[in-house]
Amino acid sequence: MTQNIAVLAGDGIGPEIVNEAIKVLNVLKQEGLSIDLHEGLVGGAAYDETGSPLPEATLALAKQADAILLGAVGGYKWESLDISVRPEKGLLGLRSALNLFANLRPAILYPQLADASTLKPDVVAGLDLMIVRELTGGIYFGQPRGIRTLDDGEQQGFNTLIYRESEIERIGRVAFEIARKRGSRVCSVDKANVLECTELWRNVMTRIAADYPDVELTHMYVDNAAMQLVRAPKQFDVMVTTNMFGDILSDCASMLTGSIGMLPSASLDANRKGMYEPIHGSAPDIAGENKANPLATILSAAMMLRYTLGEADRADRIEQAVSRVLDQGLRTADIFSEGMTLVSTSEMGDAVVAAL
Amino acid sequence: MTQNIAVLAGDGIGPEIVNEAIKVLNVLKQEGLSIDLHEGLVGGAAYDETGSPLPEATLALAKQADAILLGAVGGYKWESLDISVRPEKGLLGLRSALNLFANLRPAILYPQLADASTLKPDVVAGLDLMIVRELTGGIYFGQPRGIRTLDDGEQQGFNTLIYRESEIERIGRVAFEIARKRGSRVCSVDKANVLECTELWRNVMTRIAADYPDVELTHMYVDNAAMQLVRAPKQFDVMVTTNMFGDILSDCASMLTGSIGMLPSASLDANRKGMYEPIHGSAPDIAGENKANPLATILSAAMMLRYTLGEADRADRIEQAVSRVLDQGLRTADIFSEGMTLVSTSEMGDAVVAAL
Ligand SMILES: CC(C)[C@H](C(=O)O)[C@@H](O)C(=O)O
Ligand SMILES: CC(C)[C@H](C(=O)O)[C@@H](O)C(=O)O
Repeated sequence: MTQNIAVLAGDGIGPEIVNEAIKVLNVLKQEGLSIDLHEGLVGGAAYDETGSPLPEATLALAKQADAILLGAVGGYKWESLDISVRPEKGLLGLRSALNLFANLRPAILYPQLADASTLKPDVVAGLDLMIVRELTGGIYFGQPRGIRTLDDGEQQGFNTLIYRESEIERIGRVAFEIARKRGSRVCSVDKANVLECTELWRNVMTRIAADYPDVELTHMYVDNAAMQLVRAPKQFDVMVTTNMFGDILSDCASMLTGSIGMLPSASLDANRKGMYEPIHGSAPDIAGENKANPLATILSAAMMLRYTLGEADRADRIEQAVSRVLDQGLRTADIFSEGMTLVSTSEMGDAVVAAL
Repeated sequence: MTQNIAVLAGDGIGPEIVNEAIKVLNVLKQEGLSIDLHEGLVGGAAYDETGSPLPEATLALAKQADAILLGAVGGYKWESLDISVRPEKGLLGLRSALNLFANLRPAILYPQLADASTLKPDVVAGLDLMIVRELTGGIYFGQPRGIRTLDDGEQQGFNTLIYRESEIERIGRVAFEIARKRGSRVCSVDKANVLECTELWRNVMTRIAADYPDVELTHMYVDNAAMQLVRAPKQFDVMVTTNMFGDILSDCASMLTGSIGMLPSASLDANRKGMYEPIHGSAPDIAGENKANPLATILSAAMMLRYTLGEADRADRIEQAVSRVLDQGLRTADIFSEGMTLVSTSEMGDAVVAAL
């Protein structure tokens, strides 16, 4: 049966990097992989065309698709728009409408890029940590929210951090299941000493841990977690946390590796349907310059093959091809170092295709 | 006129490190500095004695004092208590009751400790950044908050992120004033693409920037800020942000320096009354072992002399004495490295006294 993939390139470097992933997928298709790619508009590109960052047609496309491949959204151009129509809202709308509550963000140091980290080699060598971020709840989506004018004429802004037990439990279980297949350790990150909402988070994590006696659960306050990521990141196996804390900690963790341009991510629902995208953003400053690193998007396509499309072998092939181009010394600007060969976005994509 | 200082040692290593700062202050007192020290209970120590982490007597003492010197609060022992009586609540109660809205957290790399950072030397050499954290508002204090049982029997936790214009404006002005005396650059950190409350934050910062044409204002999303701290921390001069984001980013920033055991902080009200404390926590794992680094607390006392007590010369003397003991190669365990002399908490305090 042919599987449908919605391809949402988005803004900034999005179209360029997604284009390289499509090249790779098309090669597999010619060889017999039964997929259809359907392009749709999202983010600022969608807003400019339709007045909405998530047009009905895109939402329908995403709902019908088996999996979604996304580039990136956002940019200076739309920064003065109201939050309700910003490019980011397109992404948040997709996550929410499709119930993609489990965001998996690996932070891996590629041995070929060992020099790229700003951290000392012994601190990060071999780093392989997985951040599991809750993605459809918390302060990102909590009501009430807004900006109101008070009686004294002053404006007041407000948002609501909110989680119910079942939301915490389902993301917790995802983290424990993943930990079982890795290092069997989960660190749950909260601010339970100050925020009641995350006190509930801690209680629920502790309760469900009883179902995973083979996995070790620890708890850490978010401020300490940010410190420990810098001090000794290799202490972690799987970290699980709220939407907001996960946003901050996963960006910090991926930067530790020095290869944020290499890191894919998956956002999954309860049935393994998923949206796949690079961890990095839309980088409007280099958009259109054929400079961006397409490898995170290509690796996101590989993750999609593995987790949603049931094509582990082909996922392996893509990952091995990426490893090979790195071995060949090919580097886009973000991961370039002395002695390597500087290549453009499309050259990198072509090299992966050649190495498949 | 004699100035009154409330001394609140708190929990864990608090009593040990505060004790060394008192030694230093007592030397200055014998030489003619007109201060009186008044000890009070706070945190878990206060809870154990009185059932409250912030007893009335302590609050009265702090209110009457010209300045407060605090050690640290919290520890495993009290982790199962209700949030409303945890040691942390004592600290939060002091901040709020005394209107200490401006938390100044420097992240400085001491040249003598250049090796201590986990970051590569060129990334952090000369690092000198100041984080200005809003301390009496935001999600730490927002109402409504709590854990409730829903109709379907599930529990739900909730907290409120809330700021009004005047709260944002006053912390913004503190940041701009500080930037004027430093590198003239303020980076305001928010999540204005997702949270309306921080959209207001950004708008207010932009508005007041007009009053400081000599200072450059930039805005950064919090996830990017966490990345940039790891990627290139020297790009920052002054960062200003909310209570919660400041908690996370300042811990991350101070760890970059490798010398978190060296970093003091000030929490100020509108009239320069302040509470001074080390950035690090109560470290219950080494409490009572005469191992902790007292320098952050001693430097907090120096900051107190400078900012609240109008004793800049004596503050200089303390800071020079600290620099001298580092030059002598004396190191507590947290900053120890090959070839240096390992000393205890009290030996370090004695060395500073000797170097005054
Ligand atoms: C673009 C933005 C809305 C988004 C987020 O905050 O979740 C991004 O930072 C991410 O982490 O995917
Ligand atoms: C102890 C805790 C309540 C406190 C905070 O979160 O503000 C601490 O982490 C700090 O940064 O001073």
